[in-house]
Amino acid sequence: MTGTETATRSRVVVIGSGFGGLFGTRALKRADVEVTLIAETAHHLFQPLLYQMATGILSSGEIAPPTRELLSRQRNATVLLGEVTAIDLTARTVTSEVLGRATVTPYDFLLVAAGSTQSYFGRDEFADFAPGMKTVDDALELRGRIFGAFELAELAALRGEDVDDLLTFVVVGAGPTGVEMAGQIAELAQHTLQRDFRAINTRTAKIIVVDAADQVLPPFGPELGAKTATALTKLGIDVRLGARVVDLDARSITVEYSDGRRDRVPAVTKVWAAGVQASPLTKTLAEQSGATLDRSGRIAVQPDLTLPGHPEVFVVGDMIDLDHLPGVAQVAIQGGRYAADQIRRRVRGREPQRRFEYHDKGSMATISRFRAVAVIGKLRLTGFVAWLLWLFVHLLYIAGFKSRVTTLLRWFITFLSRGRSERTTTEQQVFGRMAMERLAGGVAELVSTEDSDHPPAAEDGSV
Amino acid sequence: MTGTETATRSRVVVIGSGFGGLFGTRALKRADVEVTLIAETAHHLFQPLLYQMATGILSSGEIAPPTRELLSRQRNATVLLGEVTAIDLTARTVTSEVLGRATVTPYDFLLVAAGSTQSYFGRDEFADFAPGMKTVDDALELRGRIFGAFELAELAALRGEDVDDLLTFVVVGAGPTGVEMAGQIAELAQHTLQRDFRAINTRTAKIIVVDAADQVLPPFGPELGAKTATALTKLGIDVRLGARVVDLDARSITVEYSDGRRDRVPAVTKVWAAGVQASPLTKTLAEQSGATLDRSGRIAVQPDLTLPGHPEVFVVGDMIDLDHLPGVAQVAIQGGRYAADQIRRRVRGREPQRRFEYHDKGSMATISRFRAVAVIGKLRLTGFVAWLLWLFVHLLYIAGFKSRVTTLLRWFITFLSRGRSERTTTEQQVFGRMAMERLAGGVAELVSTEDSDHPPAAEDGSV
Repeated sequence: MTGTETATRSRVVVIGSGFGGLFGTRALKRADVEVTLIAETAHHLFQPLLYQMATGILSSGEIAPPTRELLSRQRNATVLLGEVTAIDLTARTVTSEVLGRATVTPYDFLLVAAGSTQSYFGRDEFADFAPGMKTVDDALELRGRIFGAFELAELAALRGEDVDDLLTFVVVGAGPTGVEMAGQIAELAQHTLQRDFRAINTRTAKIIVVDAADQVLPPFGPELGAKTATALTKLGIDVRLGARVVDLDARSITVEYSDGRRDRVPAVTKVWAAGVQASPLTKTLAEQSGATLDRSGRIAVQPDLTLPGHPEVFVVGDMIDLDHLPGVAQVAIQGGRYAADQIRRRVRGREPQRRFEYHDKGSMATISRFRAVAVIGKLRLTGFVAWLLWLFVHLLYIAGFKSRVTTLLRWFITFLSRGRSERTTTEQQVFGRMAMERLAGGVAELVSTEDSDHPPAAEDGSV
Repeated sequence: MTGTETATRSRVVVIGSGFGGLFGTRALKRADVEVTLIAETAHHLFQPLLYQMATGILSSGEIAPPTRELLSRQRNATVLLGEVTAIDLTARTVTSEVLGRATVTPYDFLLVAAGSTQSYFGRDEFADFAPGMKTVDDALELRGRIFGAFELAELAALRGEDVDDLLTFVVVGAGPTGVEMAGQIAELAQHTLQRDFRAINTRTAKIIVVDAADQVLPPFGPELGAKTATALTKLGIDVRLGARVVDLDARSITVEYSDGRRDRVPAVTKVWAAGVQASPLTKTLAEQSGATLDRSGRIAVQPDLTLPGHPEVFVVGDMIDLDHLPGVAQVAIQGGRYAADQIRRRVRGREPQRRFEYHDKGSMATISRFRAVAVIGKLRLTGFVAWLLWLFVHLLYIAGFKSRVTTLLRWFITFLSRGRSERTTTEQQVFGRMAMERLAGGVAELVSTEDSDHPPAAEDGSV
């Protein structure tokens, strides 16, 4: 099966349609190779804007364009939908499955860019109560939970019941995603939703950010971290640092501070924006190549991003343990392009480049509308200037795909009117069958267990 | 419990956030009443554009704005999320439930506008294999199935397998929704998706419309029906009239023609755009008031839309059996407004109007881009002129809510570029757990049963 030489062109298999996989594939456009991109979802996901989908600003189509469409004009690329279940480094094949049916794809070069999943630091049971922020489904689930919490609070208030835990939102993780989510939930509670309810005052909602670290946005340095923390506090967000999550259930979250003190916060809606875990594919790669894995499951690759003893296998992005690279889109994009370049050189019989060098283009995070923080080299920006830069960079990226005029326009409308045009939730989310199973008696139990104590509100009337 | 007279203002309960419920509530804006709108979903659904969501043109937010937002400035209206489980005409209360918890709301006036659900004419098991076109979830499910069928066909073709049934789409029902769906699927197969796949030619997809009636678009009359049928045929759509669906499963649909001949068509994707059934709430209303129900579950109301013996209870829209009114948005809108007007008059002690009179503003349906058919009074329009009219009327309606510039822009982009910006599907749909349960071994079985015969495509390579 190894190297069936029917095709004259080298066969490149790319695993993953994220930043690494997509940009790696695109960089092979003019190379004399046949590329097969294998991915679990039919779309590329622009993950840095997932929080905007979760909070009703953007639609799924705006941050998750179909991979096929993005590659439709690249004739040497084929998209294969499927979950990769096995990689055989000796036979040089990748096995992928859809609906239980397997496809085996042989390769001459392999680019593994399967990214990372949410990590609950060994407490996977937390996932039911605090969804992560990694997929379109996560964002829809969180959209359903966030808007659903206000709906449930209104119903409870109409019955004269306490709504504190329903109107408390805890974001775990004070990195860019956590900061952005907290800022947007504050915006919803304080502005967008304030006229929509009759029995609750959405402005009384509590938004709490907890992180085990002792600063906000650690990669941005202490100065910007402190400024961001102040900005969040001014938005009414309760920032709790040095606070480790020790327990989570449907109704509450318990944190432990560095001094050992514990605090149980009643809160129905929790968002998990903390750690990540490399795709489990690193395990099979490590077993077969002898490369080591770090605590987060990231694999130690060679300086040229290949596996030890396998110069034909590249691993990029969130999956690799190399030079303490951060888990950001640029590392994956540059890694994918570098790997593509190496493959192109080798196919042409040229000398490969020596090693992968990451060029830090800076980091940024939005705090609220018109406010952001950014680090570019030694430059540190905050406030409106940083926000303009954020807007510019994201528009540039999105425009790179196709003219996403609707996204631009939607942002324009959102920033000016504070409106949220994508608030629609589906049955499958919070109020649906599936979420019911998933919450395993969580919110459902929360609103129904007290039935015996509180008879229906007929007597006092509910309006 | 009846008439707890704590409130000095009359209490109006509205059931349903569709056209009847929403427009009825809005018409009570300046009335001296307290309105409670009870609905199962948090959004108003602009159902005539659901087919655009199913085929990737519009996002859920664009056709399903939050009811709360639409009513946020109407201070006398409260939105209550919940499924109505009981109406007590004697006690004058409505019981609604969320997550198993009941709320009882007393009323002085009741406006029932709960609409209709899809009818499978007693064959509810068909629903698993041919989703209807009534809800946001239906549209997402169909979006997942339609784009998913092309994905599965590509996978099958890469394995060298037959893809005929995967590339056959059957729309049941040749009314406006059926015609619009068929036209859009044809557009997808023939234009939008044609460059996206490598192993299949999407232009070979078969699109079939079946209807037991002997013409397309019966309410538009035989002349426009024939013109529409010709237009559909020119688009490559196979129109089969006088064809009754007698069986459906995961892989096929069987129709019986008027001459008794039967035809089993292999087709994985089926869309049910045929009959409707009034909300089951008509049953309890009929039992308590003595009003009769017709075959579709619609209730016989008085000429003033009230229940016999209950001048305080109005029923509007798809739920009523009166003067052979069609099941269109305008009947519900005008009914809701009429009922609101009656309530306002009575609250002020004025004489009620005599009877509800429906003013037919015409009907229209799009066939493909730039082509539509329309009937306005005696005027019959086809082609580009009818399409412009369609565009104008829909923009006018959508603009009525708020400036939905993004929708306008998205249409503009769609019409000019044939692009589809909302193709994203979620895990919960076709490729997810839930759909798996729902299809009960349908598509899953389809692609996996032959595993034993066809070993994984390793030997021949799949690329």
